[in-house]
Amino acid sequence: MNSLEQRILKDGIVLDSDILKVDSFLNHQVDVKLLKAMGSEFLELFSDKKDEINKILTIEASGIAIAAFVAEAFNVPMVFAKKGEHKNVGNDVYTADVYSFTKGRTYEIAVSKKYINKVDKILVIDDFLANGQAVLGLKSLIEQGGAEMVGAGIAIEKAFQPGRQKLKEAGIDLRALAVIESMSPETGVKFGTN
Amino acid sequence: MNSLEQRILKDGIVLDSDILKVDSFLNHQVDVKLLKAMGSEFLELFSDKKDEINKILTIEASGIAIAAFVAEAFNVPMVFAKKGEHKNVGNDVYTADVYSFTKGRTYEIAVSKKYINKVDKILVIDDFLANGQAVLGLKSLIEQGGAEMVGAGIAIEKAFQPGRQKLKEAGIDLRALAVIESMSPETGVKFGTN
Repeated sequence: MNSLEQRILKDGIVLDSDILKVDSFLNHQVDVKLLKAMGSEFLELFSDKKDEINKILTIEASGIAIAAFVAEAFNVPMVFAKKGEHKNVGNDVYTADVYSFTKGRTYEIAVSKKYINKVDKILVIDDFLANGQAVLGLKSLIEQGGAEMVGAGIAIEKAFQPGRQKLKEAGIDLRALAVIESMSPETGVKFGTN
Repeated sequence: MNSLEQRILKDGIVLDSDILKVDSFLNHQVDVKLLKAMGSEFLELFSDKKDEINKILTIEASGIAIAAFVAEAFNVPMVFAKKGEHKNVGNDVYTADVYSFTKGRTYEIAVSKKYINKVDKILVIDDFLANGQAVLGLKSLIEQGGAEMVGAGIAIEKAFQPGRQKLKEAGIDLRALAVIESMSPETGVKFGTN
């Protein structure tokens, strides 16, 4: 059992069969020691591809801190795609539309063309995988830049939702630190494997 | 000259007397080695207060990666305030309105009441200081929680804008890694001191 799984069991709060609150250590208050350990564990999880990965790509905001420590572990730069307004990125951007099931609407993500190049072999990092829309949007940005998406590293995968299937259909090598098979307030979290 | 000042001279792009682009290493593409060095340099900058600081507070999105490495250097947790919609934080939040001169409108920031407590001695971290509105909003969140704001650590201060004066009037101990006295596309960046 890795650091994140242990921490979910200790401090994660299962609100219902669909919602796991991790805001005390992962996506609002952030335990940077845990994130540092997760960076090493992502490096281990993608050890067969670590020599080719030259960039980490995530999406603001809750992916940023995790991706920063993954980038440190891989010793490569990190890029975060911007959501919605992105005047300060300039106009020379790749964009994709991402539908959020949580918010019930579509938002645009963007990344400056300068930071995705044909030579890049990119690992996408995000905090949660549910429906996979954010990862598919990031894949589109990578493809628009002519780069290669090496894989998607997810902190917490909700395996009972359609994300994994959608990413597999898109040919994405998906690996997660914590794969949640099922959960409920009564019985807690049940982990599976990649 | 610290790591950030050196990097601004090397890779920062002065668009006009007001706009410095640092998106190749700080707030879009992120050089995590630089951020790691900045974390140590912030620890040095606040060395007289390092024993009392027990939490780092920033605001999404571009403050997060910097604050994460500052939190690592201080060996304390990091909290990032959310902007605009924040359903996933719950309703039990402190909020403040922040006026953005760049965007010409006011947005709301919020932090869960769970993560600001009376015992907390908080260092605020942000990437840029121009008009000081974001830092003043974060100060309001801290005060609503009955905590103490120990200071504000800014990566890049535009000393020719009113932020410093406003924060001083609010009694904030402001220290920046890179204090820009003036800049222009022709002459580049001229640094001052805290």
